[in-house]
Amino acid sequence: MNKKYLMTPGPTPVPEDIRNEMAKPMIHHRTKEYQAIFKDATEGLKKIFKTSNDVFTFTSSGTGAMEASIVNVLSHGDKVIVVRGGKFGERFGEIAKAYGVEVINVDVEWGSAPKPEIIAELLKKNPDVKAVYTTLCETSTATVYDIKAIGEVIKKTDALYVVDVISGLGADDFENDKWGVDIAVCGSQKGLMIPPGLAFCSVSPKAWKAVEASKLPKFYFNFKKYKKAYDDTDTPFTSAITLVIGLKKAVERVNAQGIDKTIAEHQNQAKAFRAACKALGLTIFSKSPSSAVTGVNAPAGINADDLIKLLKTELGVTFAGGQGDLKGKIFRVAHMGGIDREHTIEAIKALELALAKLGYKFKAGTGVEAAQKILK
Amino acid sequence: MNKKYLMTPGPTPVPEDIRNEMAKPMIHHRTKEYQAIFKDATEGLKKIFKTSNDVFTFTSSGTGAMEASIVNVLSHGDKVIVVRGGKFGERFGEIAKAYGVEVINVDVEWGSAPKPEIIAELLKKNPDVKAVYTTLCETSTATVYDIKAIGEVIKKTDALYVVDVISGLGADDFENDKWGVDIAVCGSQKGLMIPPGLAFCSVSPKAWKAVEASKLPKFYFNFKKYKKAYDDTDTPFTSAITLVIGLKKAVERVNAQGIDKTIAEHQNQAKAFRAACKALGLTIFSKSPSSAVTGVNAPAGINADDLIKLLKTELGVTFAGGQGDLKGKIFRVAHMGGIDREHTIEAIKALELALAKLGYKFKAGTGVEAAQKILK
Repeated sequence: MNKKYLMTPGPTPVPEDIRNEMAKPMIHHRTKEYQAIFKDATEGLKKIFKTSNDVFTFTSSGTGAMEASIVNVLSHGDKVIVVRGGKFGERFGEIAKAYGVEVINVDVEWGSAPKPEIIAELLKKNPDVKAVYTTLCETSTATVYDIKAIGEVIKKTDALYVVDVISGLGADDFENDKWGVDIAVCGSQKGLMIPPGLAFCSVSPKAWKAVEASKLPKFYFNFKKYKKAYDDTDTPFTSAITLVIGLKKAVERVNAQGIDKTIAEHQNQAKAFRAACKALGLTIFSKSPSSAVTGVNAPAGINADDLIKLLKTELGVTFAGGQGDLKGKIFRVAHMGGIDREHTIEAIKALELALAKLGYKFKAGTGVEAAQKILK
Repeated sequence: MNKKYLMTPGPTPVPEDIRNEMAKPMIHHRTKEYQAIFKDATEGLKKIFKTSNDVFTFTSSGTGAMEASIVNVLSHGDKVIVVRGGKFGERFGEIAKAYGVEVINVDVEWGSAPKPEIIAELLKKNPDVKAVYTTLCETSTATVYDIKAIGEVIKKTDALYVVDVISGLGADDFENDKWGVDIAVCGSQKGLMIPPGLAFCSVSPKAWKAVEASKLPKFYFNFKKYKKAYDDTDTPFTSAITLVIGLKKAVERVNAQGIDKTIAEHQNQAKAFRAACKALGLTIFSKSPSSAVTGVNAPAGINADDLIKLLKTELGVTFAGGQGDLKGKIFRVAHMGGIDREHTIEAIKALELALAKLGYKFKAGTGVEAAQKILK
């Protein structure tokens, strides 16, 4: 096993043709050549988001776009609801508080999905809530939320619906417009299979009204500046040129087979991986598992971080660990972006080898067999 | 002339070995392997900045780091001085105003450098000024400011000294610590010869005191978050991994010959280019020309943008145009980063060809000859 397999929920492997495209000689960004690339990348992104809204590209990590989804639509003292069931839900709350926004937390047990009824009730009790913030896939717990159902609740109110699809997009089902999402926040290094460094926001007409009313200070992430440039197929500040070139190629790849088929393929890989875990006697952490990433409980007596270390150093396979209270207790394996069937099977093979080395008892090969049955 | 020459003041050409390094398979950022790269990149940057202060790396364009240099050290209603002699000086003022900071402008004629005495006077009249913002090289006018002399003035006061070295670093002289700079703001796509997408801030002990007092809201660009991660050789949010890998290679390249020799080499190229312009009968726009980029007045009867278009489409050489009121009046040619002697000579050859095509009268070959004399 000389080949290395990166199975983390971001960054994901960047396909070789995309890496080569980004390695070409540098070009200038205020040129027709680059404008055409930027336009294709943006149009391709819109198809993947399933939106007719504008989708802006920021040079930042996903957190930058999360901040953009707060500072552009709120004012000091505004009230928002934040679904907090993991590290990324928590982050929305931290950003809001940093800007003097009042946060009503919907605390969800890590690994569980929020109940739409609870959000409905809170919105009824607090008709002045300006926006609801949630994740599609809470990466830290590998849990997918029912964004469609929550959308049904929010649609009936004046509140904006802001969804972090950073790790879910391209693996978990997502319909920006049909589900009534006002701002979807995304990053480049997950389902979009390019390196980290770009982040995106879709912005609905309802969100634009909030932008007009918003008084929070902003400059670098100011939607209005992006909109003005966007209408000229440009960005207000120097684009991360090579990453946008990679993005164009990546979205072409996704859209060539269609976003629905892409999602189905990753869902199938997730299913195969979970079947392998079951066959090996392992249990899944989440009660609502995402198809972008699976969190697996480390078996009794084995520290997940030891398993991850062994996999990385001896077998060339990189898994992610648990975060916060889950450290040492779970390992996380991604199914998104550039991760394909070969990755999934090789990861399971390596997992079996590592588990055996750590003294875990199981029938060798059953994990791979269970996965292959689904992927055949 | 099949080879293309990118002569714009950002992005600059990225050397092939750096591009190839960035095109290797993706790695995860929370690993020892990446930490070592990040550490080398940061230590290398510090040598180029000539500082013993921390230098933080943001995933953003240079404007993001400009914003960081404002939101981290100021509070609403604070007063600052901004040197405004071009587009990037103006931007500092715009960001400050967006955050409710009061701005005292030092308006400098485009193409001129500010007089340190004026800043000294203003600081005396306004002892409550919290910081002075200026550029090292004002890219839009290709003008270098006397940062050392302004530093002497500010050193005697409580005000912070914030310098945008985005385009100047690596070509114009710069001494972060000796010149008393509290925050130097930089970007990746100029003298550091990697693609756009990273930005940097050095932060002095004096600046840290202001950080403690600052009340402006911030999250993504919060220095304290970067400091906490930095001390663990990490970033608070996902790094732009490939760009940091490129940065490590780029700073190694600069530091292999030393920053002083690197600057001397680019200053020599700038000198050669200006000598060529003189030989061709062209005049330089700036009264204080930068060595990072030269702005050249278009000769009478020729629109600079026509010249630029001809150079790009027919000769494969990309120059930059004038911005704002200078549009059509000047063209700008860079000497920084991956731009070497070959680039400089080929750019002059192309300039001669283009000028001849547009009917400008001069003795062919005199520009190249004048430059070669200096570069021999």
